[in-house]
Amino acid sequence: MTNKTPSVESPICPLPRRHSDKIVQGHGSGGKMMADLIKDVFYPPLANPALLAGDDAGVVEISDGVRLAISTDAHVVSPLFFPGGDIGKLSVCGTVNDVAMVGARPLYLSASFILEEGLDINILEKVVNSMKEAANEADVQIICGDTKVVAHGEADGLYISTTGIGLLEPGRSIGGSQAKPGDQVIISGSLGDHGIAVLEARGDLGFETNLESDIAPLNHLIRAMLSVSDKVHVLRDPTRGGAASALNEIAKQSQVGIILDEGSIPVKPAVAAACEMLGFDPLYIANEGKLIAVVGSEDAPRILEKMHQTRYGEDAVVIGQVEESPPGRLLLKTGLGSTRIVDLLAGEMLPRIC
Amino acid sequence: MTNKTPSVESPICPLPRRHSDKIVQGHGSGGKMMADLIKDVFYPPLANPALLAGDDAGVVEISDGVRLAISTDAHVVSPLFFPGGDIGKLSVCGTVNDVAMVGARPLYLSASFILEEGLDINILEKVVNSMKEAANEADVQIICGDTKVVAHGEADGLYISTTGIGLLEPGRSIGGSQAKPGDQVIISGSLGDHGIAVLEARGDLGFETNLESDIAPLNHLIRAMLSVSDKVHVLRDPTRGGAASALNEIAKQSQVGIILDEGSIPVKPAVAAACEMLGFDPLYIANEGKLIAVVGSEDAPRILEKMHQTRYGEDAVVIGQVEESPPGRLLLKTGLGSTRIVDLLAGEMLPRIC
Repeated sequence: MTNKTPSVESPICPLPRRHSDKIVQGHGSGGKMMADLIKDVFYPPLANPALLAGDDAGVVEISDGVRLAISTDAHVVSPLFFPGGDIGKLSVCGTVNDVAMVGARPLYLSASFILEEGLDINILEKVVNSMKEAANEADVQIICGDTKVVAHGEADGLYISTTGIGLLEPGRSIGGSQAKPGDQVIISGSLGDHGIAVLEARGDLGFETNLESDIAPLNHLIRAMLSVSDKVHVLRDPTRGGAASALNEIAKQSQVGIILDEGSIPVKPAVAAACEMLGFDPLYIANEGKLIAVVGSEDAPRILEKMHQTRYGEDAVVIGQVEESPPGRLLLKTGLGSTRIVDLLAGEMLPRIC
Repeated sequence: MTNKTPSVESPICPLPRRHSDKIVQGHGSGGKMMADLIKDVFYPPLANPALLAGDDAGVVEISDGVRLAISTDAHVVSPLFFPGGDIGKLSVCGTVNDVAMVGARPLYLSASFILEEGLDINILEKVVNSMKEAANEADVQIICGDTKVVAHGEADGLYISTTGIGLLEPGRSIGGSQAKPGDQVIISGSLGDHGIAVLEARGDLGFETNLESDIAPLNHLIRAMLSVSDKVHVLRDPTRGGAASALNEIAKQSQVGIILDEGSIPVKPAVAAACEMLGFDPLYIANEGKLIAVVGSEDAPRILEKMHQTRYGEDAVVIGQVEESPPGRLLLKTGLGSTRIVDLLAGEMLPRIC
């Protein structure tokens, strides 16, 4: 016998996990657990520059000078229909917006459906018609699809995965890593409408708000913004995980500090009341028709002016600015004058919100 | 009272249905019920030339002279792992193949995951690694993804939707409508391996076959075929619904008759035995690494010779030919010398096979 540490050879070397070994709702949250899952499970084998960029859409050059933006989303919202929209409209707008958020012009969508046996075909028809309406408004075409059927109890009604393909203008570079100290942070309208509207449709709210989801295709709004400025540095739609998660991602990608002014953040009274009651923070509630723009401060007034002329940007306001430090952090200046860190959510607040 | 038919005005005018008003497994079969669902529910609102072409991938011109092929598939195979592959390999190969079947070079994939709460993360890791291996073999990159989590009982382990984007060579026109009288019909290898292997993995077979799924990316095989001939008119992978469904679609799209010679159709003894026992016809069993090619007869020998030099085409044979009539029909010359119509399946034989 010696004191030597025994040499143990393991044929399998499991990744160290900072989270549970089973999938839980938090892994789909848009927050920290999801970020960890992506970093631990998806990035190591699949790593490539387009994926690792971590933007809403992957950007690739498909032939000389022709750059595509490609984005995909699975849609599992519950219930299928809610005030202001349904899973069909969501599946089109969500993907159109992700493609538009890198500055690309969305052109084509694919749609794949997983249907639960027993689903009423009239429901499917309503959903498909709603996809068509949203596609018309966004001026995109759905050019391929697929349908799978699973047994009763192996899905919940229907799920839709959409992938969007858009064309990038030459020279344009918009992405999460482009925020610069001095930039202004714009939000296109009030926060949290989608999340609270879906929650109400689930019957989880306990009171009536008359609130509608804000679902909308934002590509035309973005075209308008880009037509008046080449200083739109970052665009992101604050969906799952809300504005807090989107801004945290941007702060990390650009290694800047982002400082929000609480008093300037637009939140409708019904959303504020619902959040108050449920203990939620509107900064973490999902939106489906809003965008965050980080723009050069000299162009902020003209970008805002242009946004105010559009249907989905009329309530746009500046809610904060970018600073050098603390790098990778989102801070909130409260109404009381204090400043607090706004972090990624650890777990899941509202499952199946999109 | 008069004899006049009463005028009834209905604000809602439901489509006449030739099928049930609820989704059933048959709607995901790749057979007649699915074709009807697509025709009744998806085509009327979404109609556009790329979608209506009815090929494995939609083809669009995204900028001057740059044509893309785009295809999508939801993958819900059960079980997740089976001899020869798993849902990860399937999700990559299935989509790579669909893009390649219009003659395009597959380049990029998106992948969206629907995960059931409680799924073991090690399973997800194995599946993602398997996607990576398949993507490496096919020489494609997975450039964007999405992950949603649903509660236990709202999915079955995990589902993956993939969309593939490929580049079409200028001038090349391959599609279901290009079959011409006189053309030869080639199959790249034996039929039914995937379907029977999955059935066995489910424990539904009752005996052991040692059969493996044929899942494979076929894009390199197709490149090889196209390098020796410009008379490859149609390519299709006979997945759900098998060769019978794929050939029926081609006969209808091209308005030609396709006549198969039963004796020349390659079927492994284990598949033949399983089909015999279960009352299945190998022509309807799903394949995931086979292709059907309809080619100009003068080029058939050189195409076959080239196929025989490749890994996934070494057993390629001619199984039939294209004739002028009966238009839209698939016929089988049996070993007894009789000829019978091979129609689309009405319902579902093997749910969740891909």
